[in-house]
Amino acid sequence: MSVPEKFEAIGVQDFDKWLEPKHFSYTPQAMRPEDVDIKIEACGICGSDIHAANGDWGRPYTPLAVGHEIIGEVVSVGEGVTRFKVGDRVGVGAQCDSCGKCSRCNQDREQCCKDMVGTYLGVYKETGLPTQGGYANYVRVNSRLAFKIPDSIDSVTAAPLLCGGITGFRPLMTAGVKKGTRVGVNGIGGIGHMVIMFAKALGAEVTAISRSDAKRELAKEIGADHYISTGEEGFSEKYCDSLDLVVNTGSSFSEGSINGILGLIRPFGSMIFITAPPSNENLVIAPFDLLLKSISIGGSGIGSPKDIEYMLDFVAKHQIKPWIETIDISEENVTTAWKRMVKGDVKFRFVLTGYDKYFK
Amino acid sequence: MSVPEKFEAIGVQDFDKWLEPKHFSYTPQAMRPEDVDIKIEACGICGSDIHAANGDWGRPYTPLAVGHEIIGEVVSVGEGVTRFKVGDRVGVGAQCDSCGKCSRCNQDREQCCKDMVGTYLGVYKETGLPTQGGYANYVRVNSRLAFKIPDSIDSVTAAPLLCGGITGFRPLMTAGVKKGTRVGVNGIGGIGHMVIMFAKALGAEVTAISRSDAKRELAKEIGADHYISTGEEGFSEKYCDSLDLVVNTGSSFSEGSINGILGLIRPFGSMIFITAPPSNENLVIAPFDLLLKSISIGGSGIGSPKDIEYMLDFVAKHQIKPWIETIDISEENVTTAWKRMVKGDVKFRFVLTGYDKYFK
Repeated sequence: MSVPEKFEAIGVQDFDKWLEPKHFSYTPQAMRPEDVDIKIEACGICGSDIHAANGDWGRPYTPLAVGHEIIGEVVSVGEGVTRFKVGDRVGVGAQCDSCGKCSRCNQDREQCCKDMVGTYLGVYKETGLPTQGGYANYVRVNSRLAFKIPDSIDSVTAAPLLCGGITGFRPLMTAGVKKGTRVGVNGIGGIGHMVIMFAKALGAEVTAISRSDAKRELAKEIGADHYISTGEEGFSEKYCDSLDLVVNTGSSFSEGSINGILGLIRPFGSMIFITAPPSNENLVIAPFDLLLKSISIGGSGIGSPKDIEYMLDFVAKHQIKPWIETIDISEENVTTAWKRMVKGDVKFRFVLTGYDKYFK
Repeated sequence: MSVPEKFEAIGVQDFDKWLEPKHFSYTPQAMRPEDVDIKIEACGICGSDIHAANGDWGRPYTPLAVGHEIIGEVVSVGEGVTRFKVGDRVGVGAQCDSCGKCSRCNQDREQCCKDMVGTYLGVYKETGLPTQGGYANYVRVNSRLAFKIPDSIDSVTAAPLLCGGITGFRPLMTAGVKKGTRVGVNGIGGIGHMVIMFAKALGAEVTAISRSDAKRELAKEIGADHYISTGEEGFSEKYCDSLDLVVNTGSSFSEGSINGILGLIRPFGSMIFITAPPSNENLVIAPFDLLLKSISIGGSGIGSPKDIEYMLDFVAKHQIKPWIETIDISEENVTTAWKRMVKGDVKFRFVLTGYDKYFK
């Protein structure tokens, strides 16, 4: 299959009108020996897409096509690529490049590489060219950051794993979650519902935490063993010490009741937060909340290539199925999906499909 | 030896004149079956003494005798005490009581017991009586919170271990420090210098971190392998990823360069802070500092009885010797010592001695 010189995409043209993304075309950075071209078949809509599109994380360039939960077919490989052949079905997450040489890359921490390039909102160091994401017909990425999708996982299911999935899975690895670990998941949304599923599959006892009682039944349906509403008066004392770990998937620290949730964690336990708030928002913690129980708060960002491969195998083995609503890609449908995302009106992840219809 | 009904002490009479502590006497809570009376021989002056005396942590009662690095001789034991006999040399730290029944107490986390009673600034739940610390001739405590001092550790050396020592040792246990772990110690003072010694004895590669170059030679003398001044421009980038763990012994979060120090920590590393700032001061962290490297910040408060016993054995085995300046107890000398503490003018810990001379 011949790959066009220009790729077609849908993206933000003006951050002040971010809800009106438009079709555009762009010339990708010249193919390097380590690169692959992928013809896109599906792409999840991640909360990061909204943060990036609305300017929460700065306004570095337009047009800007977001999308970093990409599934597609390898259609061209650079001369140095041995990981893939044309025809392979692969996924790409939030990272499309890293230096591959630094101590972080060499220690399986590519996601922390100082030259980490985001699949969108990224800029290639050598050329200064910006990256464009998966709301597009093709994407060109470093093959080290693309991952073979196990045959037993269909493309729509696979898509949200590439960013949301690994983002939720990695903290469970970091905290060593195993049979019997008492895991709280704060926020039952795109990532949160996957964390519940992962933690259950790891054998944990899982408590869903939400701001009201509204998602109680839903949480049970996803697989949670228990439910705590932070709207319940005195919840922090009532369920004191009931959790070893809280994975905080909330997209803001000013919302919710962080200090109250810290009260749920037993001594020497931890909270790991995984989503990035607007860049001007800080985490404000009363030190005594951590001191008196010797607990810790950590951040966790995506995962390394090895982590992603491990997670894909884990999902295949445990037949984990995130809840997904598919929507065919088009300017109008991206607007619709983003508006519904902002309202929390999706259970729980949109995946863009119908690429062949739109990008003829 | 008969124990008097009233104990003699030196303490704050008026928080507005905290630097003028005076002699007073008080009646301790009635002896319980689990209690022991200790005739005090030495007491370290901890940074907490200053925070408590000057009202940083509230103004719950006067007179207030501080001091929770107590060494002395058991002179009376309650009928239920089996741990000690009269004549034993023991130490008492920052905690003098806990419920002994809750899940925290039962899981070797007495220091986190909700009914934890501080050796000073504490109030007994049953009687409402306040506690008085070790600037006194005697102290009465729950025997579970008193610890036999190994014969090879002299009393002056032992004193600062009971609070400062365990406070600095516990985070090294929590983080699993071992041969080759790269430990940073921020703040070279009463606790910091002990953390350097402990970490070295555990086989770690130790970096002392301070605000200027002034303590470089001192840090080497204590045993640090490396030194970083946060006053050096670009220190955070220059020594990036050089540490696995930072133990932050600074007594304030507004001082120093927390975000810069986070830059020294390698991905998936951690910072543990161990001292309590004034209660109105919060920890403010830019979430991306934690997210992008998946690092965590934890608090650590003192240690459990088992931890303290383990540390005392460790100190005995490795013949660790904190740097101590002794000063005989008296109203004037307490004032002098506190004033010098505030200025950081002690290397590195005062220990009050001469109890028999003062309390005749």
